[in-house]
Amino acid sequence: MTPESAVDPEAPANGHSGRVVISVDAMGGDRGPAAVIAGMALSAARNPEIEFIVHGPEAMVSELVGRRPALSGRCTIRDAAGVVTMEDKPSQVMRHGEGTSMWSAIESVRAGEATVAVSCGNTGALMALSVIRLRRLPGINRPAIACLWPSRNPGGFNVMLDVGADIRAEATDLLQYAMMGASYARNGLGIARPRVGLLNVGTEEHKGRAELKQAHELLEASAGAGNFAYVGFVEGSDLPSERVDVIVTDGFTGNIALKTGEGTARLVGDFLREAFNHGILSRFAALLALGSLRRLRGRIDPRRVNGGVFLGLNGTIVKSHGSADETGVSAAIKLAFRLARSGFRDRLAARVASVLQAGQDDAGKSNEADGNPTA
Amino acid sequence: MTPESAVDPEAPANGHSGRVVISVDAMGGDRGPAAVIAGMALSAARNPEIEFIVHGPEAMVSELVGRRPALSGRCTIRDAAGVVTMEDKPSQVMRHGEGTSMWSAIESVRAGEATVAVSCGNTGALMALSVIRLRRLPGINRPAIACLWPSRNPGGFNVMLDVGADIRAEATDLLQYAMMGASYARNGLGIARPRVGLLNVGTEEHKGRAELKQAHELLEASAGAGNFAYVGFVEGSDLPSERVDVIVTDGFTGNIALKTGEGTARLVGDFLREAFNHGILSRFAALLALGSLRRLRGRIDPRRVNGGVFLGLNGTIVKSHGSADETGVSAAIKLAFRLARSGFRDRLAARVASVLQAGQDDAGKSNEADGNPTA
Repeated sequence: MTPESAVDPEAPANGHSGRVVISVDAMGGDRGPAAVIAGMALSAARNPEIEFIVHGPEAMVSELVGRRPALSGRCTIRDAAGVVTMEDKPSQVMRHGEGTSMWSAIESVRAGEATVAVSCGNTGALMALSVIRLRRLPGINRPAIACLWPSRNPGGFNVMLDVGADIRAEATDLLQYAMMGASYARNGLGIARPRVGLLNVGTEEHKGRAELKQAHELLEASAGAGNFAYVGFVEGSDLPSERVDVIVTDGFTGNIALKTGEGTARLVGDFLREAFNHGILSRFAALLALGSLRRLRGRIDPRRVNGGVFLGLNGTIVKSHGSADETGVSAAIKLAFRLARSGFRDRLAARVASVLQAGQDDAGKSNEADGNPTA
Repeated sequence: MTPESAVDPEAPANGHSGRVVISVDAMGGDRGPAAVIAGMALSAARNPEIEFIVHGPEAMVSELVGRRPALSGRCTIRDAAGVVTMEDKPSQVMRHGEGTSMWSAIESVRAGEATVAVSCGNTGALMALSVIRLRRLPGINRPAIACLWPSRNPGGFNVMLDVGADIRAEATDLLQYAMMGASYARNGLGIARPRVGLLNVGTEEHKGRAELKQAHELLEASAGAGNFAYVGFVEGSDLPSERVDVIVTDGFTGNIALKTGEGTARLVGDFLREAFNHGILSRFAALLALGSLRRLRGRIDPRRVNGGVFLGLNGTIVKSHGSADETGVSAAIKLAFRLARSGFRDRLAARVASVLQAGQDDAGKSNEADGNPTA
């Protein structure tokens, strides 16, 4: 595949010029299908180019869809009676998951009806099903989950991966994460040449585990071919930093960091609320400060950063928070739309292939396979 | 040593009944010796039982001490011309560190003049020097650094360890961290039977790396002998939780989590400030809300939680933040005082010995070696 052919090749396949089809798993979230379909309606009202294939028990789903005028004529329903619960073990879902809404949502991507699927369900099961049904991109050893992190950068977000697809990563996996994360930042966030950092316990070159020192060398050597700038080691305090766009780490560390950040933000938010509930003057101040507090909430609202993206597969899966409400679901759908529209999957595949090629030929050469189209 | 003899055995050795001597490294912090000595003066003014041995270039230190009436007659100065900088490599300091203020501060603990030392200097160098000069407690394989974490618990803090003494930990190390952390929580925070959790990417038993599954078994079996309650796996979001007091993890993960939490709190604080600087009404509201915002700051102020504690050595070292101002230094000294006063070192040694013994005899038995004295 030449780089040029990678530009938005999915659109014609959908049979709707200018339209983008997103596959949605209606089930498995903590708030049930009503929140998911409300989120779809929100997105549909805002974005005239979006269409859905929605998966779940037909009677229930069609009733919920029928109540939303925004979805009228823009939603295909696929009956799937089974539901993957948060308690189901991934290994079990892999064996017995056929017929569930999650399986069916992935199947739409596999069949090429959609290039991105969205689910609020069980992360482990979703990853396991995605890997066996979609399979890894050629050259990718471990798929990864990328999340968005509130940051001081102009765009407001940094990318971190892996945040939990796998609990270990070798140096070569970390290099693949860097390429995938950079490609995601280009196509999902519009950053032409993302700055990539490697998460470590210090920024000095002698610090950290052996695989990190190896990865440090690999990233330095591959930055040109991967079309990213390598900024070296970064620390936990740099996750929101403006000196980096993509933070690369193993899935164990990334998952702990993600949940630590979420937990800390929630704690500070709770303390803030308590501080403003302390006496009548504070409550009056809080009323006056309402605009400011809303602005603050808008910047750190976890619903705005909703959507972990599974990278490294033949198809893109957006994992929404299990507890997502309609705002959260709509944010995940927006991200899915943007990635589908950019032709992300094929660009990423071309980029991985080109870096593998460059690794074999000459690590210094670069091409623009997944840069923004110039046309 | 019997458990009873472990109760505050240092006080008579100081030659001052009721007085506690703290060894302080005046140099190596980002703000220089003036901030350290100002912090000592703050502590001395508040606490009539505290005395200091302070280490640094004599002329400079004695001039700074002379300006502080609160320190008059309560401060012995030890001349040490050399300074360990933040850039010095631990391996170099180990070879050439003799004659530095850091070395000298540790030496006071080694000689029994003080049981706890405080330093704002280079963490890696401080740990390396502490290990070679004080040596490990019998039965301890890897020393650890414990930090305090703002929490929803009534005391306001949880303990997390290791946050960076070592980048790896086996299952048996994690068990030792649990014992040391529980002992620290009893003696430093006054929690009679601390609840210990093991940091992982999920709370289900099948999750995580192999050494975590092993440690899970070990902690379950040793909770009785260690005088703690084991609550199982906890996640990053549980670090401030009220269902746990002590969080155990390896030093790589702990360091990333610590810095991620600090970075997130700082980001939210910056966003809050920006939100309140947005227009005249917001600024007016901020004025009214000043009390509330101060209360909030008091709860998440990193200076209040200043002081990582090195555990597992023949002597206790409190590592203050390099950037600590006088408030931060004083908080670290307060923690050092509390640990020295409780006879923490000997209690911890007795506890480790008793658990080792229990492991050999019968893991089910327990004694109260480092519980609070009932007298």
